[in-house]
Amino acid sequence: MARIDGFSGVISPALTPFTADLEPDTGRFVTHCRWLLDQGCAGLAVFGTTSEANSQSGSERMALLEALAEGGVDTAVLMPGTGACSISETVALTKHAVELGCGGVLMLPPYYYKNVDDDGIFRFFDETIQRIADDRLRVYLYHIPPQTVFGFSLDLIGRLIDAYPDTIVGIKDSSGDWDNMAAILKAFPTINMFPGSESFMLKGLRHGAAGCITASANVNPAKLRELYDNWETPEANAMQESISALRTTIQGYPMVPALKEIIAHYKGDNAWRMTRPPFTAMAAAQIEKLLAELASLDYALERPLALTGE
Amino acid sequence: MARIDGFSGVISPALTPFTADLEPDTGRFVTHCRWLLDQGCAGLAVFGTTSEANSQSGSERMALLEALAEGGVDTAVLMPGTGACSISETVALTKHAVELGCGGVLMLPPYYYKNVDDDGIFRFFDETIQRIADDRLRVYLYHIPPQTVFGFSLDLIGRLIDAYPDTIVGIKDSSGDWDNMAAILKAFPTINMFPGSESFMLKGLRHGAAGCITASANVNPAKLRELYDNWETPEANAMQESISALRTTIQGYPMVPALKEIIAHYKGDNAWRMTRPPFTAMAAAQIEKLLAELASLDYALERPLALTGE
Repeated sequence: MARIDGFSGVISPALTPFTADLEPDTGRFVTHCRWLLDQGCAGLAVFGTTSEANSQSGSERMALLEALAEGGVDTAVLMPGTGACSISETVALTKHAVELGCGGVLMLPPYYYKNVDDDGIFRFFDETIQRIADDRLRVYLYHIPPQTVFGFSLDLIGRLIDAYPDTIVGIKDSSGDWDNMAAILKAFPTINMFPGSESFMLKGLRHGAAGCITASANVNPAKLRELYDNWETPEANAMQESISALRTTIQGYPMVPALKEIIAHYKGDNAWRMTRPPFTAMAAAQIEKLLAELASLDYALERPLALTGE
Repeated sequence: MARIDGFSGVISPALTPFTADLEPDTGRFVTHCRWLLDQGCAGLAVFGTTSEANSQSGSERMALLEALAEGGVDTAVLMPGTGACSISETVALTKHAVELGCGGVLMLPPYYYKNVDDDGIFRFFDETIQRIADDRLRVYLYHIPPQTVFGFSLDLIGRLIDAYPDTIVGIKDSSGDWDNMAAILKAFPTINMFPGSESFMLKGLRHGAAGCITASANVNPAKLRELYDNWETPEANAMQESISALRTTIQGYPMVPALKEIIAHYKGDNAWRMTRPPFTAMAAAQIEKLLAELASLDYALERPLALTGE
């Protein structure tokens, strides 16, 4: 069964750089996003977990989105995160994204409360979609139990698709649980499923996934794109091993600070090291160890990252 | 050792009524808050978990706070919840509360990420307090691991008090874990500690707690005040048993929808039944069972709730 028209390929949940005063660094953000697209990303999931989206206010996120549009990025390739704990903020962020022409939005469930059942999450999405009332809206469900604790059950995904078949067009599964991804692919073959880590990229593509949305696309977009383009070739397994090795290395560190350290190092731009709390700076010894491990991988991060301009 | 000057007594985390369109119902909110104070609450922790605060946008919460001030409520008795996941929103909400003259704010830790360590939470509060830069700021830490998963360790509380002794003046402990409350009372005898449930009210007062901040104060303020005023009398144990019986009954149901059903029933005002998602309406049979259990307690909810005006 053919998938619903939507995003496919490698989508990067773009990092958000901050200035020394911890304000969003608009210039570096636009440059980074354009570089990710140049390197082969098919889309940008701006304002995901990797983007420190929840460490920004709604107005800060809307200003960054407008800066991308003004900076010449085709908004059709953007899939901003717009899910907040309240229907009011979720509706405001989503309407703004739709009006800017974004190709879709990645929507978290309301993550403050913890004993939330399927009926409650359904009601949240139902009220949100009704209030937006826009045929252009395309929602990708953001399943990420490591942060939100609860998530989207198979039954709930089915109910949402049944209620809004033209609106609920995809899901990002950041559970880290292949069995859950496989179950979604089997139960809902027409929606666009994206594993939330490239560890599952090749396996996902072989089972009908639309691509991959992964944090490390921020430093490794070209190799991920290469695997996407060649997943049916005999070289695919070796490509998967290579990108998995990089992932495994980075995963030994706090993901967002580590990615920012990598960019700062290979670009020679220390401004990239800044994170907002609750993240903290990595210790010097930890950074040194990470960079040594990356160097030992014989992995060409230096050339592409040094070529990002600015 | 004397406690730092601050809130004491029974503080109600006021419920937020919504209209049929799910907008905050300003009129009913102001009336309810004034009634809670008339009934003996010493303060109002508006925009706590019970208030569905995280189901509202920042601007909705600020508008309700302004409505209370305009409605004649002395803002010195208000302790609004202002903790959000971002420093930017936390600073904006807190500055607004301080400028309105609120006696304090109840501040959640940044609750989106889950593997957050003490250094990260410390950095969040440090940046927030520095940015507000206002001598009038009084922060009550909001420790509620059932919703935020992580919370404030004893070590972290100590670090925050050491860094900001005039600002960090209290804590609400909604862990439900008496050992944790006892440890806080022992380690930090000068700060104002509030158990997050009246189940621990008498025990808390006997160990130096400043009072109690509890959801069921929305329907039972006068009896809680009575225990607070008489905790050193021979009648205190019986009073604690009586309020605990009500608490236990309500806890058998989803807390916020149940409290709203109780108010709707005893006030004869169905508009009070509305909740925002992810909460859902209680089934008719469940409501009937709750009301029957309450009636069997021989507990005088009817008279005070019927006297709330409007």
